[in-house]
Amino acid sequence: MASLVDLECIADGVKAPICTSSFLFRCELNSSTRSYTFKVSDEDDSDHILALNMICLSEGAKDECNIVEFVGHDYRDQEIVVPVANLKLSCQPSLCLEDFELQPPVTFRLRSGSGPVHLAGQHQIFHKKDLSDDEFSEDEEDFSEEDESMEEEEGELPPIKPAKKQRRS
Amino acid sequence: MASLVDLECIADGVKAPICTSSFLFRCELNSSTRSYTFKVSDEDDSDHILALNMICLSEGAKDECNIVEFVGHDYRDQEIVVPVANLKLSCQPSLCLEDFELQPPVTFRLRSGSGPVHLAGQHQIFHKKDLSDDEFSEDEEDFSEEDESMEEEEGELPPIKPAKKQRRS
Amino acid sequence: MASLVDLECIADGVKAPICTSSFLFRCELNSSTRSYTFKVSDEDDSDHILALNMICLSEGAKDECNIVEFVGHDYRDQEIVVPVANLKLSCQPSLCLEDFELQPPVTFRLRSGSGPVHLAGQHQIFHKKDLSDDEFSEDEEDFSEEDESMEEEEGELPPIKPAKKQRRS
Amino acid sequence: MASLVDLECIADGVKAPICTSSFLFRCELNSSTRSYTFKVSDEDDSDHILALNMICLSEGAKDECNIVEFVGHDYRDQEIVVPVANLKLSCQPSLCLEDFELQPPVTFRLRSGSGPVHLAGQHQIFHKKDLSDDEFSEDEEDFSEEDESMEEEEGELPPIKPAKKQRRS
Amino acid sequence: MASLVDLECIADGVKAPICTSSFLFRCELNSSTRSYTFKVSDEDDSDHILALNMICLSEGAKDECNIVEFVGHDYRDQEIVVPVANLKLSCQPSLCLEDFELQPPVTFRLRSGSGPVHLAGQHQIFHKKDLSDDEFSEDEEDFSEEDESMEEEEGELPPIKPAKKQRRS
Repeated sequence: MASLVDLECIADGVKAPICTSSFLFRCELNSSTRSYTFKVSDEDDSDHILALNMICLSEGAKDECNIVEFVGHDYRDQEIVVPVANLKLSCQPSLCLEDFELQPPVTFRLRSGSGPVHLAGQHQIFHKKDLSDDEFSEDEEDFSEEDESMEEEEGELPPIKPAKKQRRS
Repeated sequence: MASLVDLECIADGVKAPICTSSFLFRCELNSSTRSYTFKVSDEDDSDHILALNMICLSEGAKDECNIVEFVGHDYRDQEIVVPVANLKLSCQPSLCLEDFELQPPVTFRLRSGSGPVHLAGQHQIFHKKDLSDDEFSEDEEDFSEEDESMEEEEGELPPIKPAKKQRRS
Repeated sequence: MASLVDLECIADGVKAPICTSSFLFRCELNSSTRSYTFKVSDEDDSDHILALNMICLSEGAKDECNIVEFVGHDYRDQEIVVPVANLKLSCQPSLCLEDFELQPPVTFRLRSGSGPVHLAGQHQIFHKKDLSDDEFSEDEEDFSEEDESMEEEEGELPPIKPAKKQRRS
Repeated sequence: MASLVDLECIADGVKAPICTSSFLFRCELNSSTRSYTFKVSDEDDSDHILALNMICLSEGAKDECNIVEFVGHDYRDQEIVVPVANLKLSCQPSLCLEDFELQPPVTFRLRSGSGPVHLAGQHQIFHKKDLSDDEFSEDEEDFSEEDESMEEEEGELPPIKPAKKQRRS
Repeated sequence: MASLVDLECIADGVKAPICTSSFLFRCELNSSTRSYTFKVSDEDDSDHILALNMICLSEGAKDECNIVEFVGHDYRDQEIVVPVANLKLSCQPSLCLEDFELQPPVTFRLRSGSGPVHLAGQHQIFHKKDLSDDEFSEDEEDFSEEDESMEEEEGELPPIKPAKKQRRS
């Protein structure tokens, strides 16, 4: 969760710099592809969040109930299936998902109907800054020293490291 | 409330580190299960929040008014019943709940109609960091000392302690 | 406003600790009760916010326009009447209110139609921490002292003082 | 923008205390009043934001397209006309505006239809605290001094200065 | 992303002051202009965000499916096409986009239907403060010095530098 990162960051006395990047996310579910799993590689130590904004039907949709469900985990780490939206061409062809935040792995499934249904949102990546690099060591000293050249470097937004490649399921 | 935690955290001078985790939440109400209570064990000293995002009808729903109400407490600690949504298959089969935040215990009830109605959201857990552990003591000293190895540990996000097991009602 | 409190809190250098609590809020408007006023006692020095999430029709509603309006104050302290939602059973039996934040006193009124219309939301209370109590005095000293037992107390979320009783109008 | 203020406030090391107040805002557009401009006096040095929450039709509305547009400025300071909502009595008599934040001057216009259409929201005012007053001077010294009586004053939320009177257009 | 800036700002120990400005944004798609690209000049080193709030049909729209898609980039920097909304005059002439945040370059395209469809939102610009200017240098010294005249300058919101001109595609 994005808020997780915020809280830690503040709570720990500004010692865990994190750089965030955000990308578009899409997923199409239809009668031939009824399921899609969003997951990240085990080697990827960044935090990934999907913040889903919109869901809509597109060309070829019939006037039937298109029910989309998420498959994820509850707080006991049990897999749960969560129906989230029911789209019908004649009354609700589009729907906001209210910035529904999900952590991978999560599966999107077309439970009923033939779609096509499209999920749209933002894929946010929170990169942890490497604590062993030089910049951070300098940062730690800045209550006692007044090296202004250092400050200039800090003022630069840290480079965003690209997320590790991952295979889509 | 999530914001409660934020405020405390900032207001108290960054002395109550909190780690947050977020899980999927679901609840189905239908003609045989008209009520569901979300509660946590008395022994659980974490803060739990349900942030509800979506409500929708699924297969088998009739074109009738499906009214969902929450049963919780007002500021005087009196139990109150709060009708929240009215779903009808032919005009509003799905509805956003706008990140409606609830604290346990709270009961979800199908007041009218036979459903099935599904509530979907996020179950957020705010774990208080144990103040007696070594890491925190070190934290307290960091305005007067410059132990860099300590800083490196602080930079790590603290481990998220799993929520205590609880029985569902 | 919630954001008011946040800003003050940060702006004043972490010197106005505030503890927040949140409760369910409901209000029903119908042909016999067309108006409800949310207000707090003059003696209550906490800040109260209503964050309204949902509005819906319930059993007995007719297929007519049910218009709900708020009566509050504009920035010149003039009373203003603000139509906010128009619910119709056949097309919009429920509606999100997008976390519409209101400060008491505010009146909810059924301007047209016979309802029943239900408003649902959160009643948030921001308690100002008593600055003269012992805990706060200790807090003030913590940049110069290192009493760890004190820190442990600070790590606890401060107790939430119950809001003063108030009469409903 | 509200977020502007937040960022400045944090970024500048807690040196620009700002007190915020929030009021109800309304605007009615109909066949005789097709336009309304929200602006503030040139002498008013507070920041004003309109955060619009809801738009709805009221009594007398016909089943026609009621299109509302905003007239404001883009990033090149060019005036632009922005259609924002299209309300129709038989399918969407009300609509959320998702906390659409606007800075004055901005004009609301009924582009099509005869209304009546109502805009509802919050008028937020960010008052800059006068940096030359005594309270602030004391604040500046509080890292080096330990005058506890001073802290007690700081704990008080600063008084909210009423916004300057302004003429409506 | 706006949140990116927030995080950096906090994480780096209040060393990257950023001033934000927000403007109206609009985009019309119709049968003759089916596509619009939002991009910024390569020389522009500010961060630009489009936060889209609303989408609606206007005069002349037919009762057909008007599907709008975004063309942007996923986390692997691959171009993706994301259907986002499906507007139909008889059931959903307007729709909230839930503050859908986009970073340039992004293209808005009318995939189906003839519109006119209007996108409305906020164009937010995050200007990085020049770290080599005098004001900032003074800022860096303010834990050790007590120049009150300096504080007065800090209390002023820094001037917002106009975004560089850009050509629309």
